[in-house]
Amino acid sequence: MTDTATPRRRTRGGGGAARRAERTAVSVETAKYIERNIPNFEVLNEEALQIIETNAETVLAEIGVNFVDSPEALERWRKAGAEIDGERVRIPRGLARELCKTAPSTFTQTARNPERSVEIGGKNLVLAPVYGPPFVRDAEGGRRYATMDDFDKFVKLGYMSKWLHHSGGTVCEPTDVPVNKRHLDMLYSHMSLSDKPFMGAVTEPSRAQDSVDMCEILFDGLDGRTVMTSLININSPMTFDSIMMGALEVYARANQACIISPFIVGGAMAPVSVAGTLTQVLAEVLAGVAYSQLVRKGAPVIMGAFVTSIDMNSGAPTFGTPEASHITYGAGQLARRLGLPYRSAGSFCGSKLPDAQAAYETANSLNMGLLSGVNFMLHSCGWLEGGLVASFEKFVMDADQLGTLHHFAKGVSMDENAQAMGALREVGPGGHFLGCEHTQENFKTAFWRSDLFDYKPFETWADEGERDTVSLASARVEKMLGDYQQPHLDPAIDAALRDYVRTKKESMPDAFS
Amino acid sequence: MTDTATPRRRTRGGGGAARRAERTAVSVETAKYIERNIPNFEVLNEEALQIIETNAETVLAEIGVNFVDSPEALERWRKAGAEIDGERVRIPRGLARELCKTAPSTFTQTARNPERSVEIGGKNLVLAPVYGPPFVRDAEGGRRYATMDDFDKFVKLGYMSKWLHHSGGTVCEPTDVPVNKRHLDMLYSHMSLSDKPFMGAVTEPSRAQDSVDMCEILFDGLDGRTVMTSLININSPMTFDSIMMGALEVYARANQACIISPFIVGGAMAPVSVAGTLTQVLAEVLAGVAYSQLVRKGAPVIMGAFVTSIDMNSGAPTFGTPEASHITYGAGQLARRLGLPYRSAGSFCGSKLPDAQAAYETANSLNMGLLSGVNFMLHSCGWLEGGLVASFEKFVMDADQLGTLHHFAKGVSMDENAQAMGALREVGPGGHFLGCEHTQENFKTAFWRSDLFDYKPFETWADEGERDTVSLASARVEKMLGDYQQPHLDPAIDAALRDYVRTKKESMPDAFS
Repeated sequence: MTDTATPRRRTRGGGGAARRAERTAVSVETAKYIERNIPNFEVLNEEALQIIETNAETVLAEIGVNFVDSPEALERWRKAGAEIDGERVRIPRGLARELCKTAPSTFTQTARNPERSVEIGGKNLVLAPVYGPPFVRDAEGGRRYATMDDFDKFVKLGYMSKWLHHSGGTVCEPTDVPVNKRHLDMLYSHMSLSDKPFMGAVTEPSRAQDSVDMCEILFDGLDGRTVMTSLININSPMTFDSIMMGALEVYARANQACIISPFIVGGAMAPVSVAGTLTQVLAEVLAGVAYSQLVRKGAPVIMGAFVTSIDMNSGAPTFGTPEASHITYGAGQLARRLGLPYRSAGSFCGSKLPDAQAAYETANSLNMGLLSGVNFMLHSCGWLEGGLVASFEKFVMDADQLGTLHHFAKGVSMDENAQAMGALREVGPGGHFLGCEHTQENFKTAFWRSDLFDYKPFETWADEGERDTVSLASARVEKMLGDYQQPHLDPAIDAALRDYVRTKKESMPDAFS
Repeated sequence: MTDTATPRRRTRGGGGAARRAERTAVSVETAKYIERNIPNFEVLNEEALQIIETNAETVLAEIGVNFVDSPEALERWRKAGAEIDGERVRIPRGLARELCKTAPSTFTQTARNPERSVEIGGKNLVLAPVYGPPFVRDAEGGRRYATMDDFDKFVKLGYMSKWLHHSGGTVCEPTDVPVNKRHLDMLYSHMSLSDKPFMGAVTEPSRAQDSVDMCEILFDGLDGRTVMTSLININSPMTFDSIMMGALEVYARANQACIISPFIVGGAMAPVSVAGTLTQVLAEVLAGVAYSQLVRKGAPVIMGAFVTSIDMNSGAPTFGTPEASHITYGAGQLARRLGLPYRSAGSFCGSKLPDAQAAYETANSLNMGLLSGVNFMLHSCGWLEGGLVASFEKFVMDADQLGTLHHFAKGVSMDENAQAMGALREVGPGGHFLGCEHTQENFKTAFWRSDLFDYKPFETWADEGERDTVSLASARVEKMLGDYQQPHLDPAIDAALRDYVRTKKESMPDAFS
């Protein structure tokens, strides 16, 4: 049972310095993306699915969606056969679904280390870290605005995390770098501090173009390869803004992947019911994915669904709740019927601290993510306080739990060794299996083991200061950052990337909003 | 959507004092047991199930099981057609399964408050609290030996917990009461401080008989009703001891239900593989349930599976792990094929504290319990430190999370109101659902809401002292115990129970081991 890609990197050109760098690099183990050998859990029956699909077509045909400040997009839709009324686009029944058919059901996102490339779609699950928090928190310093230094640390932690396949995107917002330049530093951080696949900028079409340009440098020409998966949020309900659509257009034209994702707090941006929300999610995704295919047939896309419930007392979004699970399971079924890769779930929680609330909510969400057939799980570690905060401790706590998903997804081996009839005969009634041959041969790989949790005898634990999970996680963060060694990058490429960033930064004044 | 039984108790005889007691009683809401409207998750395919079933028959026929110090049991087995060799019982293929057929697939456990009676089996899930810990822990006092006062508090908390259907059994071991007398106090506690169903004593056949006798008093004669579900552990591997079998015999003869449950730390009491463990679990349950039917055809039983993985570094049992999930899902499939109610899962964790580790592990286990088709979940709240400790804070934390299981199990409503097409038309692109009619009509019941977790704005939370989940839970324990009011019990019955306990206690010297 080998579930990990071999950690050694291949040598690439670069002369003596590169070879020396390679020789001293720490070997970092990264598990292969999850290939499920288990069924999906399906909460909706055929009748329910058909109702939702019919209703979504009704939404598109009769209510329509808005493409705001995007005359080009409206023109594309008009040519495709939609009815345009101001910025409203009404899409005849079946048209959007038909257009979606040219989107691939699975695609490869190439990493600069080819052993870290991921296959997105099918029965696979690729795990990426938290995205977007303006704040960070750690046990020592509490909650504060995120900086570029924090960003680099999260990229390093992601690189060092065995069960994480993807370096992610905006692992936190580096608020100390001007808004119009921070994407350059973030991209350079992912490109130079990690060799896992990553995400591009979406905050302006020009920044998406910068992302593509920098990838051209990093990959020494793209040759049609998909090397980024980027996050295009829909302004739910049913609104597509020109910034996000502009970024989508840049990526689609360059054959780079986008997650097209409704962003919904239930009861606010969608109806306060599971069936109504699923209808809206499907309508929005159909319109968004269809639009990506109007820009370029065959552009790789992922059906996204970011949906939380709401606490109607406080108005706060709530996480790890049963209704969010219903929606996540249902949207997975809709994605598979549409033949698209699916993005949802994550280490979601509303708690302010990485405490028990955070862990209950997160575990609920991670488990549903695995069983609902998610193919790309953004936010799979580090999420805190409704996504406002990236937590260092929670990052390593969640990243450790991701190991349970890998092991559960393997399914149950039924080969002769696993049947263990020899062991049952050898030990018999009243015996003990610890010493038997079968146990000796299998115990090392039989059970998943946390690299973080406390499994010590009570007395040892008490003697060592009664440490809780946060305390263990703080120590682990420190250890991982201490052990971190930068993966090799061709110095010529590194110099060209630095040059690109410097030149771009010098070309415009700083902007902080 | 009413998911709770009406809280008001019926009047029963007892005169003015009883009526006065009833008038002042606080109305305590208890949810009806879960009736699943969702499918089960099935991790094993047909071929795997058949292999395990065939192998289990091989274990019974060729290896056999031991019935220790039980000449009567051996004689019963001999008459039934098994081959007896010393204490070893070899059961011909098919015989145990055939004998199991007379066990009911579902049965009613009657509570003294008929609105709290539960139906065990089918698509139902009944939730009961932690069982067995010799220690208790709370945030203030730390970890210490449990006392009868602690026991009473847990029974009160269970009575006050909306999502808990069952009062349980040994919610903690009252170590300040002699071993040979504590069952009397525990039973009286469940009978007088709660009106939910409960479990009987199993530590000696005579104590099982005391349990039946006290129930005769409480229920004013049993008339064949099942009023207790008790826990009969198998000494895995494949050993049935005379104490547990003696208790089983008492209960079976009185038509009281037993959970017949292998108790397995994987790699120690069973092979270190999922398929091997499932084989052993099935063989043990087949033998145990068949034996119950030899004692009395039709005796209500539950197929149990208490299985944890092991950390081979420390030897500690581990919880919430993927292999434990595989076994729990698989055993559920085997139980359904056998036509028996199924007991497994719980608020399992290895952590010493009710921290994030405890919550991750617990949530993993609770979720798998729901999706694996468990019908009776013992340990569904309060479990800490591998079951050594009953935690007050974790009791209310877990009990709150049990609400998510209720709401998820409802499945997805697809009626016209849930489809919300009117709301989608009313709000349209770019609008907001908070104020729309559909939201106003549905928001109160749309989303599950924790009664414990923090959903407050960051600033409020900070001003209130940055409380974590344990701190919130401590306050909730205090509040619930403060609000507690004893449910009415006929004073004549109460006096008779007290008399029974006193007389029994006076009939024997104290024993502390």
